[in-house]
Amino acid sequence: MYKNIKVIAFDADDTLWVNEPYFREIEGEFAKLLSVYETENKINQELYKKEIDNLNLYGYGIKGFVLSMIELAIEISNTKISPEEITKIINFGKEMLNKPIELLEGVEEVLKLLQTRYKIILVTKGDLLDQERKLKKSGLMKYFSHIEVLSDKKEHNYERLIKFLNIDASEFLMIGNSLKSDVLPIVAVGAQAIHIPFHTTWIHEQISKEEENDSYHTISSLKELPILL
Amino acid sequence: MYKNIKVIAFDADDTLWVNEPYFREIEGEFAKLLSVYETENKINQELYKKEIDNLNLYGYGIKGFVLSMIELAIEISNTKISPEEITKIINFGKEMLNKPIELLEGVEEVLKLLQTRYKIILVTKGDLLDQERKLKKSGLMKYFSHIEVLSDKKEHNYERLIKFLNIDASEFLMIGNSLKSDVLPIVAVGAQAIHIPFHTTWIHEQISKEEENDSYHTISSLKELPILL
Repeated sequence: MYKNIKVIAFDADDTLWVNEPYFREIEGEFAKLLSVYETENKINQELYKKEIDNLNLYGYGIKGFVLSMIELAIEISNTKISPEEITKIINFGKEMLNKPIELLEGVEEVLKLLQTRYKIILVTKGDLLDQERKLKKSGLMKYFSHIEVLSDKKEHNYERLIKFLNIDASEFLMIGNSLKSDVLPIVAVGAQAIHIPFHTTWIHEQISKEEENDSYHTISSLKELPILL
Repeated sequence: MYKNIKVIAFDADDTLWVNEPYFREIEGEFAKLLSVYETENKINQELYKKEIDNLNLYGYGIKGFVLSMIELAIEISNTKISPEEITKIINFGKEMLNKPIELLEGVEEVLKLLQTRYKIILVTKGDLLDQERKLKKSGLMKYFSHIEVLSDKKEHNYERLIKFLNIDASEFLMIGNSLKSDVLPIVAVGAQAIHIPFHTTWIHEQISKEEENDSYHTISSLKELPILL
């Protein structure tokens, strides 16, 4: 299945390093901050709604997340929230942007092994500066011959990338934790994908069972990748 | 001077379309909002300081600008600012993100003319999604064979781009309104540059007189470009 691969593209957040749990952690802090106004469950639901409402405008990433939290805090508190509490929300964001990078198991060994046989690139979505900073902090930059930060991971984004790489779609293999962003659009454009689920997935990245299919492999750790190739 | 050019790169904001005046406009609104606490002059100075303090963390773009305004409003008001006023600041940002695109004079004619003889690309810095959206709104997408959004426009960013384009630095011509970002680093890496000053320049992009030199041309409008080439 993976015989003619020329380029292997890795997703970054929750594929190479921990990301989503930091959002969950801050969402918990945010709900605690607003707990006098609403239940934690309701706050989480409303925050997700607010993020989706703002997604077209802000895109993915921490800055948009912080702006959505501030907007929601003002609404949920019926404008009773204090400036000191808004400062706390701003500081949640700064804390997230300054987080150290925690690599997932096996990442460096696998990249080291594969780089001798394939062209390895990084394909991520979100905030350009934040993703560049995380890559720098990760120490993994030397393994990647190209870094592509996309505003979204839809079929047309991948088609453009594959065209730019000057290869056939069948020669492109994407590896990532999100079925919705890293696997299904890849399979749809005729490229290949391997899914490595991560224990925490943002609702926005979740898909229904029936969208799953057998045109890709699922492995439980990056360490299983070399055996598949 | 411009005989061996293979790729012409255009900056976007204030080179192809109006951008900086929108920031000035919102800075004015912001100062008015805080006018009970401080003079407009002092607020402008402090906002610039705050943006520079946050630049490493937030990067360029409207979302970081809004977060800096909120942070400063809380500080300058000594936490007296109301949630309603913070909502106004959030809406300043949304208004900016939704602005229509106003092309500068001659842009479309010049791109149409040059695309037959050169590879034309767009090289801008800032927020990925916002820049992509502006390009889409501008109707200019069809003229560019490649879009590069950089997290910054320093020498190393340009070196990497020129290497990626697989050309010699001397075959690369950059056109833009910022001496600091579009011209001086370009000349420093051995590529060529043409400066088109715009009437409004952010202080951060301004340079001292002695940094100017004669290794690039200055024209007053994009319409003069074809004559130079």
